[in-house]
Amino acid sequence: MSGYISDAVIRRMPAYIRHLRELEKAGIRQISSQELGERMGLTPSQVRQDFNSIGGIGRQGCGYFVRELREHICRTMGLDKPHRMVIVGAGRMGRSLANYTDFSRDGFETVALFDNDPERIRLSTERLPIYPVEELAERLPGLKADIGVLAVPAECAQAMLNLLYENGIRAIWNFAPVDLNYPRSVAAVDVHLGDTLSILSFRMKRKDE
Amino acid sequence: MSGYISDAVIRRMPAYIRHLRELEKAGIRQISSQELGERMGLTPSQVRQDFNSIGGIGRQGCGYFVRELREHICRTMGLDKPHRMVIVGAGRMGRSLANYTDFSRDGFETVALFDNDPERIRLSTERLPIYPVEELAERLPGLKADIGVLAVPAECAQAMLNLLYENGIRAIWNFAPVDLNYPRSVAAVDVHLGDTLSILSFRMKRKDE
Repeated sequence: MSGYISDAVIRRMPAYIRHLRELEKAGIRQISSQELGERMGLTPSQVRQDFNSIGGIGRQGCGYFVRELREHICRTMGLDKPHRMVIVGAGRMGRSLANYTDFSRDGFETVALFDNDPERIRLSTERLPIYPVEELAERLPGLKADIGVLAVPAECAQAMLNLLYENGIRAIWNFAPVDLNYPRSVAAVDVHLGDTLSILSFRMKRKDE
Repeated sequence: MSGYISDAVIRRMPAYIRHLRELEKAGIRQISSQELGERMGLTPSQVRQDFNSIGGIGRQGCGYFVRELREHICRTMGLDKPHRMVIVGAGRMGRSLANYTDFSRDGFETVALFDNDPERIRLSTERLPIYPVEELAERLPGLKADIGVLAVPAECAQAMLNLLYENGIRAIWNFAPVDLNYPRSVAAVDVHLGDTLSILSFRMKRKDE
């Protein structure tokens, strides 16, 4: 599992996991690259290449064992270990993410939110506590979180990233619509929702032409 | 503006727009591919290639005019025309999207939400109306929406997509964690938040190795 795996391959893996889960649910135990490709709109050779690049486990003539393949992909993606998330920003987006139960099925548990608005901090009656940002340094060790989620406005995202970093967080899931300067040792994914809307706009234009 | 533009190029365009906007704000009128590349972590030749592929407008020795370039990218992306969105699903995610004001700056205005839960429909005291899903067919023409946003559970996403399609919607921004069957004439972007979290997990694992 060393070796280089391209970003494009990695981006397809979650969709494979989704489809393999559906197949498992349907009681299907084996599948060929042909059938899996058809489900997903990929060529069989693309499917085989993808699995080869993560240290493939297909067998000539047999196709893939659905559960084995799904577990192998999950291990490759690091999804065999649980993660604990703190969300900075308890506005609508932060609270919406905190309540998304699908993430916990994949092993990502939200353990607390932080905010600097006393009004929001009083909302803590929910399933999860909302703490003042000033308590982040003191609370973080006890929370044993390894992922920081940024659900704050663009203006304060870098400062909150720095604060999380200074307190040992090395993974950031960023929803602030800004390009941040990540320290080298940080793993990060930006979810720029506005960007995806621009891409939709482009696709609409293309369909019209 | 015909010709093929790769998905990878299109995916970089929103970040260019963000950086060019920041430059404009800072009063900078011209920029070289070298400087723009440095800001964005791209090589100068990558920057030049990207702009060539959208019908480039750089001048040998001058670099790019910041505002002209930003406007050209926006036109290429179809961002020079406004869009109107209806959100199906007025749970936390749907309401969170409805209140994200950054989208309206880019010309994406949310005009209404739909839900099948009477409790949520009573929340309509907000800035936007929440209508019962049964009224979608009747309300849609008056709303003049061209984008349907799916913020519903996976189980009902396909049915809601079909309903929007039957009522003339040809662009879908999907937040349901499921792979949908889009009719050929539909422009679509899926925002699978769980997928981005899996990618973060993979990057964390790589940093640890």
